[in-house]
Amino acid sequence: MAICLVTGATGYIGSKLTRLLLQQDHNVIAIVRETSSLFQLPSHHPSLHIENCSLNYESLPTIFKKYDVDVVFHLAAPQTSTDSYEEIKNSINTTITFGTYLLEAMSNSSCKLLINTGSFFETGESNQYNPQSFYAASKSCFQQIISYYVKTKKIKAISLRLMDSYGPRDPRAKLWPQLISSLKSNKKLCLSQGEQILNLVHVDDICEAFVNAWKILLTESYTHHEVYYVATEKKQSLRCIVEIFEQAAGRKLLIEWGARPYRETEIMNPYVGELLPNWHAKIELMQGFRSLLESENGV
Amino acid sequence: MAICLVTGATGYIGSKLTRLLLQQDHNVIAIVRETSSLFQLPSHHPSLHIENCSLNYESLPTIFKKYDVDVVFHLAAPQTSTDSYEEIKNSINTTITFGTYLLEAMSNSSCKLLINTGSFFETGESNQYNPQSFYAASKSCFQQIISYYVKTKKIKAISLRLMDSYGPRDPRAKLWPQLISSLKSNKKLCLSQGEQILNLVHVDDICEAFVNAWKILLTESYTHHEVYYVATEKKQSLRCIVEIFEQAAGRKLLIEWGARPYRETEIMNPYVGELLPNWHAKIELMQGFRSLLESENGV
Repeated sequence: MAICLVTGATGYIGSKLTRLLLQQDHNVIAIVRETSSLFQLPSHHPSLHIENCSLNYESLPTIFKKYDVDVVFHLAAPQTSTDSYEEIKNSINTTITFGTYLLEAMSNSSCKLLINTGSFFETGESNQYNPQSFYAASKSCFQQIISYYVKTKKIKAISLRLMDSYGPRDPRAKLWPQLISSLKSNKKLCLSQGEQILNLVHVDDICEAFVNAWKILLTESYTHHEVYYVATEKKQSLRCIVEIFEQAAGRKLLIEWGARPYRETEIMNPYVGELLPNWHAKIELMQGFRSLLESENGV
Repeated sequence: MAICLVTGATGYIGSKLTRLLLQQDHNVIAIVRETSSLFQLPSHHPSLHIENCSLNYESLPTIFKKYDVDVVFHLAAPQTSTDSYEEIKNSINTTITFGTYLLEAMSNSSCKLLINTGSFFETGESNQYNPQSFYAASKSCFQQIISYYVKTKKIKAISLRLMDSYGPRDPRAKLWPQLISSLKSNKKLCLSQGEQILNLVHVDDICEAFVNAWKILLTESYTHHEVYYVATEKKQSLRCIVEIFEQAAGRKLLIEWGARPYRETEIMNPYVGELLPNWHAKIELMQGFRSLLESENGV
């Protein structure tokens, strides 16, 4: 039973990871913002400790001391990913400043293990640095800062580059809620041509990747900072994925393909680099969509 | 005659560059901090405009609009380069946050040319990212952010990686003031073994590199972000450099070599990558030291 500090614990993936860690009998220190809604976290779990850290990053060292943290799962991210002035400020503040304070607090504590969250938006369609947004650029920047701490402050780290994710009761503004709503209402859905390839990973698989990355950090011989992708081995177009969704739902959706243009920054064929070595995605899309639809009907 | 915005204009290199640009009949907008001392800048020069920008980076767009800036020379840097908590805060704030606000302001103005300042501390002895301090790590981070703006916002940029610099009346805590003071007082100077190789570039050569980098940015075919080193072709050990200094001074100094250990982070043999193509260092050490000593005697 370890003491796990989770940043971004109120987010979709962060809250699922928190639940998984609690299930595995670990203690979780959830670092949350004053403005964060806690609705995705279990209420009154004896092993879950909420710590508010809004704009007062200097409380981090105290938190590390108070709980004698063993490992950090760093999933905190700014809320959106457009390039407005406000968002850029948020990206720097959340990704770079908060991240660095976290590394500083770790350096001055006994906790040296960090699993960090990256994004396939850092590379887009290319096999190298090719950020698709300022947010993605700031993620890559922060990985450089991690490498500095790994070299000089005995931190051990893995950055997981996540692809598109999905799962039950996802409050994020993604396609799946629209598909479900169209399924319920039978309303026509206007989509792009749908030829873009998506690499969709179920949130439960992603959470397992975080736990498995931690296992790698626990091996004594691992002392550096690697960046791994958390991706399925399948490449499927949006059209193909919607077809699987329809099969899972047992009926066709009313979709007008090509009614919308592709986004200006649409990634048609996302690059996937080296996968996390001790992990692979287990949940097939059909199975994932079925459980998603079941949970939806259960609401 | 162009309108040049210079950040870090109150620093040693920044103030020399400001004077050079004024000499070349350009207008200079010097972005300074409230706390900056202006003693190195000309007072009451009709083409020099001082703009205070402390902690109020949001005034940058107004400054770009007010002056219709043509090119940005970005030399602002945090004051020191140790790794204390305060310094890390300063590095993020000055290098990343301020730098990004500068890029944002440029994106929303007609000014698209940026000459940025890097450091050989980003690579140390290696031919790749290998920062020797948090400050150096943050410099590399910012170059990644520049690349993002170059890709998405039509900015054209060159980052100049500077080596060690020297020149007359240098107020920075470097070796040269110590050598001069030892020359005057005849007091013994305790140094390391002195086998570390320095790549010393005269501040006038460095200022020329900034102007030449601007010339490259003005060519239409250049549309990207290159990182160039501003280095001499000579590799000389500290001992050898002190010998040249002694020759320039016309007498021997009282030095105890090996009386001090090397610094923990001493760079014994700094890596030098691709040099700025349209530039080479013109001022030989002997000549540079002589003018340094002359200016010293002239005080």
